[in-house]
Amino acid sequence: MRSFCLVAALAVVTLGQQVGAQDQPAPPFDLDSGDVITQVLLPTIIPYIYSDISPTASDAPLVLRLTTLATNALFDATAPYHPTAVGLYTRLDRRPEAEATPRNINIAATYSVYRMLNTFLPRRMDVWRKMVEDLGLDPDDNSMDPTTPVGIGNLAGMGVVRGRSNDGMNQLGNEYSRTFNPLPYGDYTGYMPVNTAYELLDPSRWQPDLQIFGAGLYKIQQFVTPQYALVEPYSYESPEAYSVPAPLASDHSNFAIYKAQVDHVLRVSQRLTDEQKVKAELFDDKIQSLGFSTIFMAQSRGLSPVELIQLDFLNNLATFDAGIFVWQEKRRWDAVRPFSAIRYIYGDNYVSAWAGPGKGTLSLPASQWRSYLEEADHPEYPSASACFCEAHAQSMRRYFGSDALGYPVEVKAGMSRIEPGVTPAKDLTVTFPTWTDFSSDCGQSRIWAGVHFQAAVDESQAVCKVFGDMAYDYWKQLVDGTARPRAPSNGR
Amino acid sequence: MRSFCLVAALAVVTLGQQVGAQDQPAPPFDLDSGDVITQVLLPTIIPYIYSDISPTASDAPLVLRLTTLATNALFDATAPYHPTAVGLYTRLDRRPEAEATPRNINIAATYSVYRMLNTFLPRRMDVWRKMVEDLGLDPDDNSMDPTTPVGIGNLAGMGVVRGRSNDGMNQLGNEYSRTFNPLPYGDYTGYMPVNTAYELLDPSRWQPDLQIFGAGLYKIQQFVTPQYALVEPYSYESPEAYSVPAPLASDHSNFAIYKAQVDHVLRVSQRLTDEQKVKAELFDDKIQSLGFSTIFMAQSRGLSPVELIQLDFLNNLATFDAGIFVWQEKRRWDAVRPFSAIRYIYGDNYVSAWAGPGKGTLSLPASQWRSYLEEADHPEYPSASACFCEAHAQSMRRYFGSDALGYPVEVKAGMSRIEPGVTPAKDLTVTFPTWTDFSSDCGQSRIWAGVHFQAAVDESQAVCKVFGDMAYDYWKQLVDGTARPRAPSNGR
Repeated sequence: MRSFCLVAALAVVTLGQQVGAQDQPAPPFDLDSGDVITQVLLPTIIPYIYSDISPTASDAPLVLRLTTLATNALFDATAPYHPTAVGLYTRLDRRPEAEATPRNINIAATYSVYRMLNTFLPRRMDVWRKMVEDLGLDPDDNSMDPTTPVGIGNLAGMGVVRGRSNDGMNQLGNEYSRTFNPLPYGDYTGYMPVNTAYELLDPSRWQPDLQIFGAGLYKIQQFVTPQYALVEPYSYESPEAYSVPAPLASDHSNFAIYKAQVDHVLRVSQRLTDEQKVKAELFDDKIQSLGFSTIFMAQSRGLSPVELIQLDFLNNLATFDAGIFVWQEKRRWDAVRPFSAIRYIYGDNYVSAWAGPGKGTLSLPASQWRSYLEEADHPEYPSASACFCEAHAQSMRRYFGSDALGYPVEVKAGMSRIEPGVTPAKDLTVTFPTWTDFSSDCGQSRIWAGVHFQAAVDESQAVCKVFGDMAYDYWKQLVDGTARPRAPSNGR
Repeated sequence: MRSFCLVAALAVVTLGQQVGAQDQPAPPFDLDSGDVITQVLLPTIIPYIYSDISPTASDAPLVLRLTTLATNALFDATAPYHPTAVGLYTRLDRRPEAEATPRNINIAATYSVYRMLNTFLPRRMDVWRKMVEDLGLDPDDNSMDPTTPVGIGNLAGMGVVRGRSNDGMNQLGNEYSRTFNPLPYGDYTGYMPVNTAYELLDPSRWQPDLQIFGAGLYKIQQFVTPQYALVEPYSYESPEAYSVPAPLASDHSNFAIYKAQVDHVLRVSQRLTDEQKVKAELFDDKIQSLGFSTIFMAQSRGLSPVELIQLDFLNNLATFDAGIFVWQEKRRWDAVRPFSAIRYIYGDNYVSAWAGPGKGTLSLPASQWRSYLEEADHPEYPSASACFCEAHAQSMRRYFGSDALGYPVEVKAGMSRIEPGVTPAKDLTVTFPTWTDFSSDCGQSRIWAGVHFQAAVDESQAVCKVFGDMAYDYWKQLVDGTARPRAPSNGR
């Protein structure tokens, strides 16, 4: 049973503060010299990802969906100002090199994201409008002139809206002829868990958990977007060409290995270190881990604003497309999470483990154990986070031709979301010298978090590099201008 | 399927603004002349009821629980300054009349609520602490001197904590020897719905609904605090002495009346007026309806601060105790909500009804119908709101010796929570000349909201007056000083 706050707070890491919500009003943005992405768009949008989409930015399908569409719009809007790049959903004539000014790029970028957000996150239309106005731009300028930055931005944004409105994700809630009271992102595949939150009828299969909202309201998990498996990938044909092996240790008829898998998670829970806790929280948050590591690379390697956009789109291509595969497999195996399996094996018997926020390791009834982090809203196997990180790491290696990273995340004492005031005991800086370190820790952090078994991590890491490679290959064609134009998606 | 915002906004009604969250810093509070209840305590606490407990203040067991314990603490803390009143959980010596100053009463009131909140809403301890500090008082003053206002407040608050920590509500999450990872308000009775959100296996019984959180995260309802039925009432022995008849029309084997009941809700949905929508939203919010009508009475009838406290405790006694009975019956009958029954009867066939926010009345597939308001997290029969209002109205009639009310609620055009910018079309003031009007509209508003059948309203109205009477009778003994001291509750 998991805690899930009604009102989210941004986790405090150094880089997070740099591009995240700001305590005081920013100085006026200068269209001629500023970088609208890191100075305006990200700081405006990110708080609403936490407040409106996913309180801990851990609901990957929803978070990555929005960031992917945003970076797609940005990519397409800036392609005409790049020497060779072509948009995915809009093929506009290239602008003369002299027009590739910060002002034009900032304006095109802003309108592209504005149009996308008005369709895909309309509940905050007033915020998006104000964001445009605050830049001295006109939110009602609907120009479709492909020779002006406003027109290019509008065309690029609307192109992504057309291209991705019906790609299978049901983002508008209108799949299966639903025309009244749309259910955005609602499942239309008819997924039903075999277990209930109340009874573990099949100890091999996924059990939705009870979650507490606020001070005492309980809700039950629902598999988030099972239809993600049916979304059209950007960089490959179909996820059906890829698979992970059956999770044998999650089959309770294999009792010995089922129990060994459970015992491994408990052993890890028993020995949790501050560094493991901090990393578990970092990698749970897809903005802080996947997003900010990308921006770190762009900034530390001196990329231009357009290159930053392109790099961030590459990051999103890799993870978004990896997710389609992961969801296919999660649905196929529908595997049990540790919290259910631990209760199944040990019931009210005592186990030695992390005993809750601020309690350290104690002997407690297994039925009262909880994982360090809340489990995400989907079956356990394979690990989505491990797959995202592996695909992300490989796409970055391909771009930079190197495994080097060096991403430092500074966490002040007591700034843990799960153990505020307690963890970490001292200021802590975790660093990831290489992408291999990043991906390895990312995967293991799901065991530290208590939400995955080892096989889910290992199998994701074994297969998911290919999604980084395919994303990079497709992205390279887009940047080089050799990719074919793309028709609006109608799902798979 | 219901919409449920991650971040709550206070509904804007005139009185709500008066005592609710404030836009600008209030002037410094004067302990010698101010009224700490309406000027400090309510404005501080109410926003956290919305943010931490129930986003629309519609989860009655949790909302009423907190307001009941708060007013109980206040009643007990001010009893020594009243000519005759005695506390429930603390019996302190009466103070000399000269000590019954606004300052002493304000101080005793503040500490009593502060102690209660630190135990029962500890997640906001820093806010409660600051509230005390801002009054120029010392939050670390733990005096238990029954001759000083600080000591009286501390003793009264701690008395309620002791008195109600183990009364069956499981507010601390420690029932059934749960000592690790407590689940505040968690069910310990083993309630399991016979239906799932996915399948209506028994069309007579309650089906948990899917609810959307934020832009696209779905969660499934869980019966909120089934154990409320087991809580010790304040003003009577046991709810088992009271009952409502079986909900025959919710039994799908009685097909004709089952269908007639469904058709009635659809007919109401088809003809929804702005006034009905506004009243539905008003009565859904237990703070705006039950709480503020009480404060209106106190203010419009010129009650003193201590009398306001006593009146508000009476309101809470009546509704809290009525809820224990309602939960007993809800659990007994476990009855289907309109949304399930409508789908069961009509499936994908078209019906004419309210077609969603801002859409008015249209012909739509019954499977795509939604109720105007989200259903609360519990079975349908009988109506909790109707019972609360009936008990509340009767307790007020007894106090004032009159049915007269006159409570006006002003709603600006477009301020509806469900249809913002649309409803009401024009500024609207709804008034309730009498308590009979108030209770009648309150009950019917649950049909207008689409969340109840008529029988659930009628049967609550038929039986629930008695809870107002019993609450008043017990409360009168407390005010007159004839009530027996009360031992800490151990549930029923």
